[in-house]
Amino acid sequence: MKHKELRQKVCETNRLLPKLDLAIFTWGNVSEADREAGVFAIKPSGVAYDKLEPNDIVVVSLETGETVAGKLKPSRDTATHLVLYQKFANIGGIVHTHSPWAVSWAQAERALPAYSTSHADYFYGNVPCTRKLTDQELKEAYEKNTGLVIVETFEKNQIDPDAVPAVLVAGHGPFIWGPDSMKAVENARVLEECCKMAYRAEVINPEISGIEQSLLDEHYFHKHGKYAGYGQ
Amino acid sequence: MKHKELRQKVCETNRLLPKLDLAIFTWGNVSEADREAGVFAIKPSGVAYDKLEPNDIVVVSLETGETVAGKLKPSRDTATHLVLYQKFANIGGIVHTHSPWAVSWAQAERALPAYSTSHADYFYGNVPCTRKLTDQELKEAYEKNTGLVIVETFEKNQIDPDAVPAVLVAGHGPFIWGPDSMKAVENARVLEECCKMAYRAEVINPEISGIEQSLLDEHYFHKHGKYAGYGQ
Amino acid sequence: MKHKELRQKVCETNRLLPKLDLAIFTWGNVSEADREAGVFAIKPSGVAYDKLEPNDIVVVSLETGETVAGKLKPSRDTATHLVLYQKFANIGGIVHTHSPWAVSWAQAERALPAYSTSHADYFYGNVPCTRKLTDQELKEAYEKNTGLVIVETFEKNQIDPDAVPAVLVAGHGPFIWGPDSMKAVENARVLEECCKMAYRAEVINPEISGIEQSLLDEHYFHKHGKYAGYGQ
Amino acid sequence: MKHKELRQKVCETNRLLPKLDLAIFTWGNVSEADREAGVFAIKPSGVAYDKLEPNDIVVVSLETGETVAGKLKPSRDTATHLVLYQKFANIGGIVHTHSPWAVSWAQAERALPAYSTSHADYFYGNVPCTRKLTDQELKEAYEKNTGLVIVETFEKNQIDPDAVPAVLVAGHGPFIWGPDSMKAVENARVLEECCKMAYRAEVINPEISGIEQSLLDEHYFHKHGKYAGYGQ
Repeated sequence: MKHKELRQKVCETNRLLPKLDLAIFTWGNVSEADREAGVFAIKPSGVAYDKLEPNDIVVVSLETGETVAGKLKPSRDTATHLVLYQKFANIGGIVHTHSPWAVSWAQAERALPAYSTSHADYFYGNVPCTRKLTDQELKEAYEKNTGLVIVETFEKNQIDPDAVPAVLVAGHGPFIWGPDSMKAVENARVLEECCKMAYRAEVINPEISGIEQSLLDEHYFHKHGKYAGYGQ
Repeated sequence: MKHKELRQKVCETNRLLPKLDLAIFTWGNVSEADREAGVFAIKPSGVAYDKLEPNDIVVVSLETGETVAGKLKPSRDTATHLVLYQKFANIGGIVHTHSPWAVSWAQAERALPAYSTSHADYFYGNVPCTRKLTDQELKEAYEKNTGLVIVETFEKNQIDPDAVPAVLVAGHGPFIWGPDSMKAVENARVLEECCKMAYRAEVINPEISGIEQSLLDEHYFHKHGKYAGYGQ
Repeated sequence: MKHKELRQKVCETNRLLPKLDLAIFTWGNVSEADREAGVFAIKPSGVAYDKLEPNDIVVVSLETGETVAGKLKPSRDTATHLVLYQKFANIGGIVHTHSPWAVSWAQAERALPAYSTSHADYFYGNVPCTRKLTDQELKEAYEKNTGLVIVETFEKNQIDPDAVPAVLVAGHGPFIWGPDSMKAVENARVLEECCKMAYRAEVINPEISGIEQSLLDEHYFHKHGKYAGYGQ
Repeated sequence: MKHKELRQKVCETNRLLPKLDLAIFTWGNVSEADREAGVFAIKPSGVAYDKLEPNDIVVVSLETGETVAGKLKPSRDTATHLVLYQKFANIGGIVHTHSPWAVSWAQAERALPAYSTSHADYFYGNVPCTRKLTDQELKEAYEKNTGLVIVETFEKNQIDPDAVPAVLVAGHGPFIWGPDSMKAVENARVLEECCKMAYRAEVINPEISGIEQSLLDEHYFHKHGKYAGYGQ
């Protein structure tokens, strides 16, 4: 089996989605890139997580998106993953799900505000929500344009995708990333938790203001960057 | 055992209801039709899912609704299933549950709006809610008239039951269908998920507008019809 | 062991509370009466469900509330159970819990409206909420007066406790009953489900009106009384 | 192994956090003090609960907060625990989590009102919410100042930390304590349940008033103090 380790890892991280309540049926996919090899590995389309085997994972070119190993058809969302790997130079793993709390915010077309230190530990500021695609973008190249509108959202709002490793696609659902697929899955689980807690906090107090920049800094930089102090 | 395979399948799909959090106690029933044999098989009334055996499943005539095999009394809702099989020519499986999110919308007497691609992948537009039955309809033939008011809802609103395979019955709960009982159960689980996410999205943003026709088309036709591209 | 069967059954029905998500820690108790023997059996105070043995169950007199068998101290709520058995002549089992959805309504001091057929299958009308106890009632005999205020609520509102086998005690939580403790536990689980669905329906549609008397009749009498048609 | 029993117990109570749905990943920590030995034991930073062994638990001085046993780095929140042990003379165990319902209230910057007897059984009045830290407090000594602002909150509002063994830290999450770490974990689980029920009660009835002092007294003193009557 070509790209054996990469496919084993991507099989494993895909199988985490239902275990972490991030996907029912086949509602989500995980990929991981091997930038040196110029490829990324991704879930095949429509295969149930509990039947997924490393050999089912599809490996595609980071340059063209064409399949280089694997017999199955890759996930529909492969073209979106491809754009993100090409435009966000440091990311190594991507998750897309229809997890219920994140989809609720995406349906509401609102960015997720940074309301607490739980959020700040993972996302350095609001998690943005994209604009809707135009009819032409939809018809032309829906999946690719989904990637491009994500990139546009980060550029327009001058958000660093390494510091805010997630986005809500309007009317659709979240894409989440990280240095590898395992970290991306962890970020996806945290996004779901933060979406839930933000929803409830707004109901408890509609006048909620969010956390200050100073607390955001304190938490984010405790876990990230060269002055990070968390863990062993 | 007559109609052995059909009863085994219907036993199995009924037993999925509590596993997918769609029914507590005996709050739901699944049926599947064998149109060539002119029958459908359905859960018996009041039997717990974990005690249900294929032999308990009741087989009734698609023409008269009378029992043709099985010793137990069929589900109270048999007359509703019968109307739906008779009026919706292409459906092969039906689910009725009191699943909490769908019942909440049915109690609120509101159609479920199409707010996201998760919805569009399964339901080509809003999932309608019926009007309430009149006192006379209730007294005359409650279960049969429940079926007829569902059919009326689809006809009046010119909704294709193959494209929107579910309905909310006002003050009662959902009926969901599909080409067979397994697909109907999957649709029932998706309806529950969409009801949950729509509820939350409206709380997050009361000004929510829903998805455009173009995105609805893109997702629905990716999974359905002759240009479908999903899966292997 | 005296009253062996009764204590075994009450042990078993108490152990159902955490399994049905009706109680955490020791937040609930179940009793069952043997009216011929003039006693009822109830959970001891503060004993964890997973450590509860039939021998721990306390048997008290239906006349005086005094212990007639068992070495442990009975539940604090024994005096409330006693009043209910004495005043509601047909009931044979009682459940008290702090289950979260029912407590939420009790805290809000609102009766649970009959919004759907799920409710009507078990409760023939709104589930009432008591008034608060006065300071004097609290100091004098809190548990006994909790029972008396429940009885007062049913008498004042002319509600038949056999037709509506549950109540919300303001600022406290639900008491639920039935012909025996197993049926009372089932009613407790249904109350929790109805409290959840009513909450959500009101959020989905603040103008919600509830179900008509005719549909309430149709469902309630299908499952109860001499014309009941449900089950085998 | 030094302080063997204490570390075994603290390992066990930390491992309860994910089991009681109080923490995902490493989002929480438990400590317990041995005041005679002048130390407390606490979770190491960033270690997963299912891999935690007694030997990983770090023992620090109650006077200086410096490590006296254990090879790993203690939890980031150690300085907060230290302040609480120093200022609240009777407490023997502390829990900090990012449990979702409590964090929602902390994000909303609202004290948790005493709405029911479930609350009164554990917390003798509202559970307060701290003010936010100033930028200077954050930069100077974030964790230590978190402890000091908790103490300030109790002093300013004249709340007895033994009677109300929990606090919500604004924009962050809850700290909960008790006579030992097992009781502190129980209090943490109850706080989460009360946060959930209070949220829902306010949605059901925005005019909710809360329970009277007399009922608060009745329940709190039934379980606490020299006239307590609960349990065996």
